[in-house]
Amino acid sequence: MAAITYELIKTCKQTGARLGKVHTPHGSFETPMFMPVGTLATVKTMSPEELEEMGAKIILSNTYHLWLRPGEDIVKEAGGLHKFMNWDGAILTDSGGFQVFSLSDLREIEEQGVHFRNHISGEKLFLSPEKAMDIQNALGADIMMAFDECPPYPAEHKYMKDSVERTSRWAERCLQAHQRPHDQGLFGIIQGGEYEDLRRLSANDLTSLDFPGYAIGGLSVGEPKDVMNRVLEFTTPMLPNGKPRYLMGVGSPDSLIDGAIRGIDMFDCVLPTRIARNGTCMTSNGRVVIRNAKYARDYSPIDPNCTCHTCRNYSRAYIRHLVKANETFGFRLTTYHNLFFLLNLMEQVREAIREDRLGDFREAFFEQYGFNKPDAKNF
Amino acid sequence: MAAITYELIKTCKQTGARLGKVHTPHGSFETPMFMPVGTLATVKTMSPEELEEMGAKIILSNTYHLWLRPGEDIVKEAGGLHKFMNWDGAILTDSGGFQVFSLSDLREIEEQGVHFRNHISGEKLFLSPEKAMDIQNALGADIMMAFDECPPYPAEHKYMKDSVERTSRWAERCLQAHQRPHDQGLFGIIQGGEYEDLRRLSANDLTSLDFPGYAIGGLSVGEPKDVMNRVLEFTTPMLPNGKPRYLMGVGSPDSLIDGAIRGIDMFDCVLPTRIARNGTCMTSNGRVVIRNAKYARDYSPIDPNCTCHTCRNYSRAYIRHLVKANETFGFRLTTYHNLFFLLNLMEQVREAIREDRLGDFREAFFEQYGFNKPDAKNF
Ligand SMILES: [Zn+2]
Ligand SMILES: [Zn+2]
Repeated sequence: MAAITYELIKTCKQTGARLGKVHTPHGSFETPMFMPVGTLATVKTMSPEELEEMGAKIILSNTYHLWLRPGEDIVKEAGGLHKFMNWDGAILTDSGGFQVFSLSDLREIEEQGVHFRNHISGEKLFLSPEKAMDIQNALGADIMMAFDECPPYPAEHKYMKDSVERTSRWAERCLQAHQRPHDQGLFGIIQGGEYEDLRRLSANDLTSLDFPGYAIGGLSVGEPKDVMNRVLEFTTPMLPNGKPRYLMGVGSPDSLIDGAIRGIDMFDCVLPTRIARNGTCMTSNGRVVIRNAKYARDYSPIDPNCTCHTCRNYSRAYIRHLVKANETFGFRLTTYHNLFFLLNLMEQVREAIREDRLGDFREAFFEQYGFNKPDAKNF
Repeated sequence: MAAITYELIKTCKQTGARLGKVHTPHGSFETPMFMPVGTLATVKTMSPEELEEMGAKIILSNTYHLWLRPGEDIVKEAGGLHKFMNWDGAILTDSGGFQVFSLSDLREIEEQGVHFRNHISGEKLFLSPEKAMDIQNALGADIMMAFDECPPYPAEHKYMKDSVERTSRWAERCLQAHQRPHDQGLFGIIQGGEYEDLRRLSANDLTSLDFPGYAIGGLSVGEPKDVMNRVLEFTTPMLPNGKPRYLMGVGSPDSLIDGAIRGIDMFDCVLPTRIARNGTCMTSNGRVVIRNAKYARDYSPIDPNCTCHTCRNYSRAYIRHLVKANETFGFRLTTYHNLFFLLNLMEQVREAIREDRLGDFREAFFEQYGFNKPDAKNF
């Protein structure tokens, strides 16, 4: 039995979005699903119990960061990432590739892997498909990601083609290096930027390797929203129906809905937790920047339509006070709300798919959130 | 019926320590009791649910800080401090006096009150007995403190005598200004430094005003431990048996036990929460500085003898990783443990009083903690 399996439950007649279920060694979750990010083996400010309470079934953790601190050997000795961080749900680890390409200067790509500098200490490091698998096998997440190159946007067709071909060769090396296929599923990553022919090349290469799931990488890296949507429209049909599809690094409410409509099953993003630590909240009526003076005497919840623990118990006035005083508990409350908001949004998306009305749901949600306004921000 | 009443349950035959119960409009608690400090209407990093779970029945909040941020009017409009911060247990607010004397420069004491500068903005402010009562009545804590002068240690006898006499006059004005005696109990504060005659003067003045409880102020301000113990030994007998006695600003394990032995019922201190945010933990075997390299691969709990949520679920290695990476959740875990440790210590102290063996308990605890070593630190 494969570590990761996918069950397609139904397709939305109105949009083509997929309702499904992913089975992992640490439980199953319905899709489309949003995965909170726990970079350093902790979803910033949250406890595992809180994540469970808000309905998170799978979280993401970052291979690159855990490799540097505390080191994958310590996590392994602790009994693996689940035990280390006391999280019994599913975990996905990325490959470290994205961080190598986004965080470090002075990188040098060669066929064998990438030379770069540790973004904290400046120390010289080398990451390769084999090393990325080694680390991820030590961490022991349910889903691992192949080591890929994530080129910047925009990139020339020629550069992108070389990169896609190398990423395909690296993907094959990842499969060969993977030591625990019985309890860890390895996903391939489709690259190719905005070029349809290169996405097809990448998809053909990777699907021929028969991974248990596929990610679409190289999006949400600065390209306009319509470019992302167009890429998804021609890329998801290149992927097999019986495997989950994961859109990396996407977490704004509009993009989650638009991604689901284009056949995406899984999403992750630091957006909800990062903006929460700045006191910005996503609500059914759009953004609430809790620091604003207008909330000083506002004794209503962050989102009157939200049923989360924060909104049931705390006022905007209290949260504003905490955030302005830089009190940790304020950031706990905003983080909890934002994650609940996105997890709840995905629940609503799944419900709409079940009832063949995701298009209608999108229209109503966009209108109420304010995404239809000319000056709409993207979260 | 008075807002605050005290019930003396029994006295330890071995030490004279008191086992009692304090009844408040927000529940009762057994004494001796430690009160976690929630300066800005939040016990740093903790949720109210966590405080309840660890056995906190009463917390302290700071009048001075809440006056400046968010302002007592906002707390009052929210329905009072309990509602504002979603804490249904008892709350004690201090008078602001200690902060005026410890945080602000440029203060000027006159009979009417104290002129000083806001320690954040530099703005000129004035605090008086009437103003301190006004603010505390707006906050609505179960126990309020009289506005006193807290002189530095050491202070000349002459200065201290003038100060004690003024504090007595201020205490009377506090009683007269207090608007909610039916649901908020006002405690008087005994001052007098290390001078027995002045402690007696202060105690006589204040007990004649018949407060529902008395604090001993002006200790834990830099004096040696034997001075504190001696002052307690001659001061607590000056106080009525039927009222609770509160030693302000004390929270090291040894001082809690030694205070209880000298007849103290209530304690508060930022120590357990402050050191937790530096990664330092109190354990049954003494201090554990979790940042230390020797804990990098230590998969045992902070304190193998502790039954708190942190120790039941997380290793030193994980907590060290979080603390070194400056991750909030690490400070949640150390804070939870330290507060649980002191609350549990008080539970053990109460049990020892019940069984007339607090002296034996002290010896065993001091030995195991390391307080009997020549170079012992005080926490
Ligand atoms: Zn909410
Ligand atoms: Zn503990």
